[in-house]
Amino acid sequence: MATVAVTHFSDRLADAVERKSSQLVVGIDPVVEQMPAEVDGDLFAFCSGIVDAIAPHAVAVKPQSAFFEAHGADGVRAFAQVCEYARAAGLIVIADAKRGDIGSTARAYAEAFIPLADAVTVNPYLGGDSVEPFLEACRREGAGIFCLVKTSNPGSADVQDVALADGRKLWQHVAGLVRDWGEELIGDRGLSAVGAVVGATFPREVAEARELLPRSVLLLPGIGAQGGTPADVAAAFAAGPASALVSASRSVIYAYREGGGDWQSAAGAEAKRLAREVWSASGR
Amino acid sequence: MATVAVTHFSDRLADAVERKSSQLVVGIDPVVEQMPAEVDGDLFAFCSGIVDAIAPHAVAVKPQSAFFEAHGADGVRAFAQVCEYARAAGLIVIADAKRGDIGSTARAYAEAFIPLADAVTVNPYLGGDSVEPFLEACRREGAGIFCLVKTSNPGSADVQDVALADGRKLWQHVAGLVRDWGEELIGDRGLSAVGAVVGATFPREVAEARELLPRSVLLLPGIGAQGGTPADVAAAFAAGPASALVSASRSVIYAYREGGGDWQSAAGAEAKRLAREVWSASGR
Repeated sequence: MATVAVTHFSDRLADAVERKSSQLVVGIDPVVEQMPAEVDGDLFAFCSGIVDAIAPHAVAVKPQSAFFEAHGADGVRAFAQVCEYARAAGLIVIADAKRGDIGSTARAYAEAFIPLADAVTVNPYLGGDSVEPFLEACRREGAGIFCLVKTSNPGSADVQDVALADGRKLWQHVAGLVRDWGEELIGDRGLSAVGAVVGATFPREVAEARELLPRSVLLLPGIGAQGGTPADVAAAFAAGPASALVSASRSVIYAYREGGGDWQSAAGAEAKRLAREVWSASGR
Repeated sequence: MATVAVTHFSDRLADAVERKSSQLVVGIDPVVEQMPAEVDGDLFAFCSGIVDAIAPHAVAVKPQSAFFEAHGADGVRAFAQVCEYARAAGLIVIADAKRGDIGSTARAYAEAFIPLADAVTVNPYLGGDSVEPFLEACRREGAGIFCLVKTSNPGSADVQDVALADGRKLWQHVAGLVRDWGEELIGDRGLSAVGAVVGATFPREVAEARELLPRSVLLLPGIGAQGGTPADVAAAFAAGPASALVSASRSVIYAYREGGGDWQSAAGAEAKRLAREVWSASGR
């Protein structure tokens, strides 16, 4: 195994989880119509305000590239600024980009996201050679990736739940690929830099993914607005406190729309509440 | 079926194919190290020069988002400018973005790409509800989409060729979904706005996809640098002259590096040669 001068992604993550007693990831999905009037539609003002509010409670943020790209070049600039701001606040940054493309193009995507973020979400439909440039970024730069395995949306069944000739479902086959890809990238703390996205909306699949992927960090979106609860995903933490991350987006960043009050205080309070609930569900 | 004030994507495409006697799509993958010295690393200068050179011969361009995103906000601005320039030159623009995400996020991606391009490539791994916002753009704005079905890279076998319980391969199942999604979006010329990406590097799969998807435009990358030839994919045109598009990228836009001479003339000559070869292979 090649030695790297940089710290392995999952070792950085495990340190941060323990230091903060948190496995909460706050998804940053800025939608102008839902942002408080006082930020006047400014993506960076809103997102940096959210980072300030949730930084004491979350271990990571997950800015969703699409909501920035919808604003063209200015949005993409704001995405980079938000990533930088979050890292300066001591947060791990997971770029939610769900990219997947053939070799030379995948390299270009890795170049686009890895300098900005600690980790990036990756779509596995194009297979191993499309993931390889991201694995190279893991080896060389201490990056992490989270491969989509079983996503949180109802329509995920259309492709991911298809029955295979060997009796498994497609997502279980993909979990096997993710395990293989991650085997060479296991850090000192026993976790791989190659993680998996599994929807918290499917608790049975979360527990199963935990067994299929004993070394992968499971990134679990779908808590809050999508209906999952921390108790639903307790099994995900069987491989250690940093072996799963629970992600909530709208229920945290737009908490003021439900509960009222100052938008930053509301986001901070909801992040704090949720981080404690997850920590407790994880058996710590 | 809802009536739309805009012209259906596949009707616009069929008109353009006949007017130009061309089914060639030129992929625009700008890599600074391969661009001619005289453009001095300027993405827009290079890409607009390519558009000028190939516009008489190609029916469409397919700018690859990754190669622009690798340059951050400036790259994303250049992407938009290239799309605008190509449309002004009478070319259909297919944004090669391969996006796929859950509902609200997929809507943000549709908003990011559909105003710039006539069509966008879409990754189907997340299922029908992730594709729905793009279908809505097809209904309302006369957009088109090309779903990844069987991609041109060797690693595509890892997921797409997995054997299903019903005897098919996964990509054949995905082709069935694409057919279902496209059924409500068939234009006056008999073709759907929902097309499919099938690698020209897999001729047998191209012929099979033609049978599984009798109404879809097949977008066939992998000609040229990746090793496919127009003769390999002749079967794709069985549903009419506009029922398939052949895409070449590096072999056209960097033709001067192989054959020498002026970079624009070399690109134009290679586009002309390839367009004729494809037209002839299509049986016209």
